[in-house]
Amino acid sequence: MTGHAPGFVSLVGAGPGDPELLTRRAVDRLARADLILNDALVPADLLELAPRARRFFVGKRAGRHSIDQDGIHTLMIRAARRGLRVVRLKCGDPFVLGRGGEEALALTAAGVPFEVVPGVSSAIAAPALAGIPVTHRGLAAGFTVVSGHAPAAYRPILDGLTAGASTLVVLMGVRGRAELAAYLVADRGWSPATPAALVLSASHPTQAAWTGTLADLGAAPIADPDAPGVLVIGEVVAVAATIAPALTAAPAAAASA
Amino acid sequence: MTGHAPGFVSLVGAGPGDPELLTRRAVDRLARADLILNDALVPADLLELAPRARRFFVGKRAGRHSIDQDGIHTLMIRAARRGLRVVRLKCGDPFVLGRGGEEALALTAAGVPFEVVPGVSSAIAAPALAGIPVTHRGLAAGFTVVSGHAPAAYRPILDGLTAGASTLVVLMGVRGRAELAAYLVADRGWSPATPAALVLSASHPTQAAWTGTLADLGAAPIADPDAPGVLVIGEVVAVAATIAPALTAAPAAAASA
Repeated sequence: MTGHAPGFVSLVGAGPGDPELLTRRAVDRLARADLILNDALVPADLLELAPRARRFFVGKRAGRHSIDQDGIHTLMIRAARRGLRVVRLKCGDPFVLGRGGEEALALTAAGVPFEVVPGVSSAIAAPALAGIPVTHRGLAAGFTVVSGHAPAAYRPILDGLTAGASTLVVLMGVRGRAELAAYLVADRGWSPATPAALVLSASHPTQAAWTGTLADLGAAPIADPDAPGVLVIGEVVAVAATIAPALTAAPAAAASA
Repeated sequence: MTGHAPGFVSLVGAGPGDPELLTRRAVDRLARADLILNDALVPADLLELAPRARRFFVGKRAGRHSIDQDGIHTLMIRAARRGLRVVRLKCGDPFVLGRGGEEALALTAAGVPFEVVPGVSSAIAAPALAGIPVTHRGLAAGFTVVSGHAPAAYRPILDGLTAGASTLVVLMGVRGRAELAAYLVADRGWSPATPAALVLSASHPTQAAWTGTLADLGAAPIADPDAPGVLVIGEVVAVAATIAPALTAAPAAAASA
């Protein structure tokens, strides 16, 4: 860094965690970054793609805040004004439930040039990697994504959903899964037999999936409640019983020669 | 290809079109492919990343079917059984409204080994690249994705949505946008003043966005009705008025040295 080059911020989606699921643009931005501001769930091997960069952890984990949202804005803006290339690295996609829109507004207000680099969202990839298509002919012609963190935020959305008409995907819902499942069954009339899945650490070597029904989602065993997890609720989950066992790791490069 | 190596199918998401938004895994699979079966909207410069591969166009465009779904399954299965590495390349993510689940089931039934490579979905990336976060604090705590192709499929999903509670994203909805907007306003009581956007050819050099309201979405001008387009309906669209003008192309590599 020279301090003479204009600073720039890239709001970058890191995808679900596997470095192979980064986009080429994300890889480029990491390689050229002077400073990375990363969330809690961004894996270490992904940060190794940014050898030049200083790293600043700005995540939240299990309710412990290391820095507040305004603090993140201030850090990004100050660094860019010093001429640094800043990567704000967020799990999944930067504009899905990650306050990326607020960061974009703060950068706009400060006159700092920035871009958005979309990423592979865990809302779609976590089900897919567990063999669950979020849409499937005859089962679901669409899907809805909510955060499971705050019932006050998700209830108005769930209240409208027609049980069985589409797939419900819940991010940040592992800890609150019993409450959410009970709400759907007891308050919204969803069948307790509705298929449900919980995909933990999707795309990581430790990926694990549980499938069952809304009735037993709350009691689904979780080895690490801090692991990133995605809930999937709807008939499409039943497809995983067929697809998931058939999913195969691709042969190594040499095998195709 | 030797015919002795085991065949393999990769169901690969191509993202919204810009080759820089391919994942690293997608790039690897393209480079090693013997045969690519690609949809209509996959851009040519993306196929250049697969120099070894034969290409077979299996897309649909404006209602003209080049090959039916069973034909795609047969092609994939036969090629894999001949020992080929097959990439089934689909726009966006392979499991979002693209019949990828059916292809996975067909491969499973045939005993052909396969994987799913999630991609950047246009449902999220197209709004983002036009400055629209699909979720935003105080405006939308979630979003719903449907296909605009068939009213009979989207109506049961739209029927439940609480107007204003979340963002509605419609893929394959450009041609049917007037009917969909009229349905929301006339039949479901959505305000005609609800902000709406239409993002065309997201991430392509020809990307264009229109923003307005549900009342005038039907009359939004479209230069090329065959271009891929994403509709976004909800209060988050209003954020684009601030963010979109501020989005900046990243400085070239040399500028950061």
